Amino acid sequence: MNRQSLFELIKRKKSFLCVGLDSDINKIPKHLLTTDDPVFEFNKTIIDATLDFTVAYKPNLAFYESRGTEGIRSLEKTIAYLSNFNDQVFTIADAKRGDIGNTSAQYAKTFLECYGFDGITVAPYMGEDSVSPFLSVENKWVILLALTSNKGAFDFQLMENKANGKRLFEEVLETSQKWGNADNMMYVVGATKAEMLADIRKIVPEHFLLVPGVGAQGGSLQEVAKYGLNSQCGLLVNSSRGIIFKSPEKDFAEIAKQEAQKLQEEMAEILITNNLV
Amino acid sequence: MNRQSLFELIKRKKSFLCVGLDSDINKIPKHLLTTDDPVFEFNKTIIDATLDFTVAYKPNLAFYESRGTEGIRSLEKTIAYLSNFNDQVFTIADAKRGDIGNTSAQYAKTFLECYGFDGITVAPYMGEDSVSPFLSVENKWVILLALTSNKGAFDFQLMENKANGKRLFEEVLETSQKWGNADNMMYVVGATKAEMLADIRKIVPEHFLLVPGVGAQGGSLQEVAKYGLNSQCGLLVNSSRGIIFKSPEKDFAEIAKQEAQKLQEEMAEILITNNLV
Repeated sequence: MNRQSLFELIKRKKSFLCVGLDSDINKIPKHLLTTDDPVFEFNKTIIDATLDFTVAYKPNLAFYESRGTEGIRSLEKTIAYLSNFNDQVFTIADAKRGDIGNTSAQYAKTFLECYGFDGITVAPYMGEDSVSPFLSVENKWVILLALTSNKGAFDFQLMENKANGKRLFEEVLETSQKWGNADNMMYVVGATKAEMLADIRKIVPEHFLLVPGVGAQGGSLQEVAKYGLNSQCGLLVNSSRGIIFKSPEKDFAEIAKQEAQKLQEEMAEILITNNLV
Repeated sequence: MNRQSLFELIKRKKSFLCVGLDSDINKIPKHLLTTDDPVFEFNKTIIDATLDFTVAYKPNLAFYESRGTEGIRSLEKTIAYLSNFNDQVFTIADAKRGDIGNTSAQYAKTFLECYGFDGITVAPYMGEDSVSPFLSVENKWVILLALTSNKGAFDFQLMENKANGKRLFEEVLETSQKWGNADNMMYVVGATKAEMLADIRKIVPEHFLLVPGVGAQGGSLQEVAKYGLNSQCGLLVNSSRGIIFKSPEKDFAEIAKQEAQKLQEEMAEILITNNLV
């Protein structure tokens, strides 16, 4: 899915919501555990319930890998199911990979070609040759970690460069623009650091940003929109636990739908106020 | 395996060789492709051929994940096979993971508990809470990326901190010592930057270093040893393609054995010269 199509999708659904499928088998409703593939069953039900309000889905690989071949099967079935809604959703492998060139090339093949995800999260520490193999797959996206939503973000990401005073995450934003562009690269910027979005927008005015940390991690949607919106929306705001695990009972899908709809309505208002729809 | 046991193992085998099982199905000898699980067959044969000369094995996850459930099955069988030689080898999941706390906890469970690897490579960009879940598993190791062997290492890892002039990889080495210690943490330092090992040893004199990049990537074992050895050896030097893919023919195991033995003999000499055995 290209940038224009993503923007069209956002306008059509009046939403820039990404639902994180962090489908921990220990947290899904107990009644699903008797089904053949509980995690896939959970994901399918969540997708059906939230599809009208959601423009992107983002399985976090950790929750699938932790179950070995069974988990990978759940992932494969989930992405296959999502492919039924090809023009209705953008799909993200939240994998945070990054390795030397020939190895990153393998990861790119896996997630972008075999599974067919639209984008994959990538860690920047190893630099250009760890990122560029992902960029060579046409019409796919690298979503590079810049300023993450967790406490540990302060350990290294804010370190200032002696040469120019720029912080590490700013160096990542600037340097990586030599590798890709706003049509094949997004950045992860945590909602918990929304006020920094103003600085970030100065460096990457056109790029889409994937913003985790709204909801369970405490970030505010209004703050994110205030500093992060651009002329094509430019935001995918993720919520995982706040939607998919809001209820651990049989009503989980209905509650997930309500939570997704609440966010979508808030997003619609933001898009309207900003003359984007 | 704890640090003392690892040193004992190194003395016993007179080797600090790690063999990287980057077992790309497109590069293994063609005659194996008719077997039930070609990659496992390849790994098993390589392990049998090199076990006497090798103290560690390091499957790179990319080459397994790229084959979906089949690949994960090959990995599961490989680590199960390696567990037959529990006290004879140290096992490393080359995964380069790192995510927010609850997600890193899943990865820790997967690789260190379920699969039972002795250690896992972890990326530092997201800071403490992305690394510490791996450290909470007893008798297991985090192997943190510090200064990698690839060209892209120069993009961010050498950036100097305005506050103190330290380079990012030095900040990673220093800061992470608050999270773990020489008994549960190692660092990745590329052989292609061997001269920097002298600086690194000033910061982490006691820690084991995992050193990729000898062989195919051009690093020199002598240089690595010159700057990197400590009183417990303190080095695991990895070779992947230079051993496992040296021959694409039916003699691949014999050739791999010869390559591993060559490196082991060079290592034995280094250990003897430095009075470590």
